[in-house]
Amino acid sequence: MKFGGTSVANLDRIRRAAKRVGVEVAKGYDVIVIVSAMSGKTNELVGWVNETSPMYDAREYDAVVSSGENVTAGLMALTLQEMDIPARSWQGWQVPLKTNSAHSQARIEEIPTDNIMAKFGEGMKVAVVAGFQGISPEGRITTLGRGGSDTTAVAFAAAFEAERCDIYTDVDGVYTTDPRVCQKARKLDRIAFEEMLELASLGAKVLQTRSVELAMRYNVKLRVLSSFEEQSDTAGTLVCAEEDIMESNVVNGIAFSREEAKMTLVTIVDKPGVAAAIFGPLSEAGVNVDMIIQNVSEKGVTDMTFSCPIDQVKRAEKALFDAKTAGLIEFDELVADTEVCKVSAVGIGMRSQSGVAAKMFKVLSDEGINIKVIATSEIKISVLVERKYLELAVQALHDAFDLDKAA
Amino acid sequence: MKFGGTSVANLDRIRRAAKRVGVEVAKGYDVIVIVSAMSGKTNELVGWVNETSPMYDAREYDAVVSSGENVTAGLMALTLQEMDIPARSWQGWQVPLKTNSAHSQARIEEIPTDNIMAKFGEGMKVAVVAGFQGISPEGRITTLGRGGSDTTAVAFAAAFEAERCDIYTDVDGVYTTDPRVCQKARKLDRIAFEEMLELASLGAKVLQTRSVELAMRYNVKLRVLSSFEEQSDTAGTLVCAEEDIMESNVVNGIAFSREEAKMTLVTIVDKPGVAAAIFGPLSEAGVNVDMIIQNVSEKGVTDMTFSCPIDQVKRAEKALFDAKTAGLIEFDELVADTEVCKVSAVGIGMRSQSGVAAKMFKVLSDEGINIKVIATSEIKISVLVERKYLELAVQALHDAFDLDKAA
Repeated sequence: MKFGGTSVANLDRIRRAAKRVGVEVAKGYDVIVIVSAMSGKTNELVGWVNETSPMYDAREYDAVVSSGENVTAGLMALTLQEMDIPARSWQGWQVPLKTNSAHSQARIEEIPTDNIMAKFGEGMKVAVVAGFQGISPEGRITTLGRGGSDTTAVAFAAAFEAERCDIYTDVDGVYTTDPRVCQKARKLDRIAFEEMLELASLGAKVLQTRSVELAMRYNVKLRVLSSFEEQSDTAGTLVCAEEDIMESNVVNGIAFSREEAKMTLVTIVDKPGVAAAIFGPLSEAGVNVDMIIQNVSEKGVTDMTFSCPIDQVKRAEKALFDAKTAGLIEFDELVADTEVCKVSAVGIGMRSQSGVAAKMFKVLSDEGINIKVIATSEIKISVLVERKYLELAVQALHDAFDLDKAA
Repeated sequence: MKFGGTSVANLDRIRRAAKRVGVEVAKGYDVIVIVSAMSGKTNELVGWVNETSPMYDAREYDAVVSSGENVTAGLMALTLQEMDIPARSWQGWQVPLKTNSAHSQARIEEIPTDNIMAKFGEGMKVAVVAGFQGISPEGRITTLGRGGSDTTAVAFAAAFEAERCDIYTDVDGVYTTDPRVCQKARKLDRIAFEEMLELASLGAKVLQTRSVELAMRYNVKLRVLSSFEEQSDTAGTLVCAEEDIMESNVVNGIAFSREEAKMTLVTIVDKPGVAAAIFGPLSEAGVNVDMIIQNVSEKGVTDMTFSCPIDQVKRAEKALFDAKTAGLIEFDELVADTEVCKVSAVGIGMRSQSGVAAKMFKVLSDEGINIKVIATSEIKISVLVERKYLELAVQALHDAFDLDKAA
């Protein structure tokens, strides 16, 4: 059971979370609880580090920032003890949760289970573990980066072969789309790992991509649920393997991203290696290129279009003009369109059912929405459209694919 | 160098403290810095623990409360790095500062020096250590109890055979008496360990008794100085062995305690074992008995008078009446006088010079102050007097023993 920052924001909420743990203990489970820092605490600590040293030593950053989770872990253990549940806290180095030495974004290498299992054997019912942190081979504290507590939870579930990994957060599950954009958005009871990854733009508020990848690799059943709702067996959304989902809609979610830009290099000389010459410098400049389209080549020249986050446009322009100056690429013009957004239909059902793309294009066309770029993967179709059409496109697709109705 | 909570209360103060460390590094010293939590932080954490669990598990208390020092240690290391001084932080378990398992009041058992010395060998100039904390034989975090950071500092100075142990705090040294009670109070340049211990009532705000005891045992030169004053070689007060003090006044300090009570058991049967029968139950009830006087026995009965902190009077009364009910002691009456205070003259010079007690009694008598109880040790004379005379007694004694003038 993992409780995020808002679920342990103060002593009352820690008590509420502890009660949920108590319910599982009463069912006979041994429980590992992963806790985040009380909401706001990590930001306070990060703020102090940044103010002290803008180019900080990541080892010291980790030593400072990890303290928030330690506080919550101890308080949670005490709260459980007050409920007569045998519990104790573990800091990352005590487990020890072993990571590599990539401070502030460390990767988990090993979680030995013997220490905690021995305590379960002695009658402990709950191990409360400070999330987000581990220990490097050099014996220094590491942190796992964004979403580190979710990742900690999934890694523990995998290492201990847990029956389930419940992620308690401030939303009650994964929705077919953002309810603020489409009123008919419906909470999904189940969603496949692959879909969850593609729905990152929706899911980011719920689950970090990294923890979903890890859950998929080790087939950990992840349940996302709200710590503020009544407890029930159907609460939240189960993120699981495809084969654990009996019935599914063809499309299970409409994801979108508002902050996109479309950039076009006009009249580039089309020769072998031109793509590498363009995207190499962009990658080095830290531009996250998403969709790429190359027009048909005519007379040895072509146009190249790609999309990237809108706040990376300046960086992309600099990288490309620098490459042009250096003689690495040739182009006539670079056109940036910063008035676009990305809308995607996601569903594992697309693998077996054809015609989804055609239907999507027709729905948008019927609404008078022009498609600027198209990209597809096995279970996703994405389009770039004018930003002003975002709500209209999402709502029309949600209706057309009957997402308000369960399969 | 140890910096207390007010000396590291915010990032500005941490920077100011780091500058003082920089001065010592510039002199060529390798420095170990011991830091407390930012002022207020430990109280916040203790408050949370108490609210969560009034009868808390001390192991979890330690895990929570120790986090404050970890934050300061990391921030101090980062601040020093910003000043181009090679520094890193160490948490208690990383040193490792080994303690026994007496959680929340652990005793230091060993401080291995090899880890930190190896880093000094590699070019590190400052080891920043989180004070107040260690690790138990079971691998759990311990804390050292009140004054734990001072004790950490002295223990490190002893283990590393440091030239000096500088305790930075919010007062600029040890005074002959409390300046709020006597305007002529003078800062002492040097004071002997034994005197410092007897002046606990003055020194408590400055140095914890336990750290002074430890410094005395290992002959660590302790300097108490303010982190808010200009730096100089004569700043603060040096607490050191008697032989390091060339000249000394006979009396070096006037200590006092306002919150005293005098209790008298009237007409007790005087027989062997009666003292044990009285003070055994008091000790078990947690009453800190200070002075004890037994009147001359007449016709097999006597009176017994003792003093204790005023807030323990109720507890003392209950313990004594319970003992009477149980037939363990016999007395007619228990009289509590809660309108007294204790005033003490302290000085190692008393060992070699007689007449100090006589002079003290005359001074008080000349002021019309009646002495209710007298107790003496080798270097201290204490009297109980009416509380309303406290300021008068302190000022008269300060004048009479010329404490406003250096030896």
